[in-house]
Amino acid sequence: MPRSVTYRVQQIGTIRTPYQDSAPYQPVDADEVDCHIALNDEYVDGLNELGRFSYIYVLYYAHRVAAHLDMKVSPPWAGGKEVGVFSSRSPVRPNPIGLSVVRIKRIHQNRIYTSGLDVFDRTPLLDIKPYIRDLDSKIDANYGWIEDMNGLAHLILHIKGIPHDY
Amino acid sequence: MPRSVTYRVQQIGTIRTPYQDSAPYQPVDADEVDCHIALNDEYVDGLNELGRFSYIYVLYYAHRVAAHLDMKVSPPWAGGKEVGVFSSRSPVRPNPIGLSVVRIKRIHQNRIYTSGLDVFDRTPLLDIKPYIRDLDSKIDANYGWIEDMNGLAHLILHIKGIPHDY
Repeated sequence: MPRSVTYRVQQIGTIRTPYQDSAPYQPVDADEVDCHIALNDEYVDGLNELGRFSYIYVLYYAHRVAAHLDMKVSPPWAGGKEVGVFSSRSPVRPNPIGLSVVRIKRIHQNRIYTSGLDVFDRTPLLDIKPYIRDLDSKIDANYGWIEDMNGLAHLILHIKGIPHDY
Repeated sequence: MPRSVTYRVQQIGTIRTPYQDSAPYQPVDADEVDCHIALNDEYVDGLNELGRFSYIYVLYYAHRVAAHLDMKVSPPWAGGKEVGVFSSRSPVRPNPIGLSVVRIKRIHQNRIYTSGLDVFDRTPLLDIKPYIRDLDSKIDANYGWIEDMNGLAHLILHIKGIPHDY
């Protein structure tokens, strides 16, 4: 019989993005998107040597999720296909912890400027971790059930939030 | 002035590993390590289509962390070098949320059998997300500050927890 316990996590900073009322589905790796993470001052010493990494993981609490939790979800770009919530990156999940891989542009004091972060402005930051080649970059990874969909290449643009006009 | 808010997260399952009192630093991709995730029954429908993915992210709460939180850490394999906690994957961090990329071996009912998970037995599960090629596999990622260390290839074995005798 599995136990169910709750734990407390705390906001350690704030993610700033241009997205006030809608956000892309996934990080947009475009230099013109103005995103940064403002880490609370007491944690700044924890950034030592972070700028050496090309990519980081950003963990955040999806605080604006209001939708009803359902074990089946239908991603907006999936043409009505339903899959289990754990087979999706939907923010509506048992623990609304979001995860994005972003590129570091530069770090200045408590601010980490990154490639596009796919979250609403002022999303609470929970953690930053280095993305380490070999450990995290799985070159034999697949697309799972997304491979069934027609027009995979086109879909990848949607999933990655890359603007396109076809 | 950044706000600091706390949020509740809940255990949604239990990670079972052979590690009772010590665990490898990172996931060991060895078929012989017997690891599985036992998801609480009420979430089983959320696993639909998950088995199609070759890799998943596993998020967990590092519940056995007892060490004092410090903004500077010295990873056990780093020969005494100190770096910021966010430049490390140390479980002793402001929010002790762990993240591992593992390969799915098979799924049976509420159990997901995976490649080696680098956590203590009975670690509380917080989330499972699909690892999606392109979105998560960054082939231009680097090793950050780890590249400064002598014997990088050797270190990678330590970081990845691959057994070796030199």
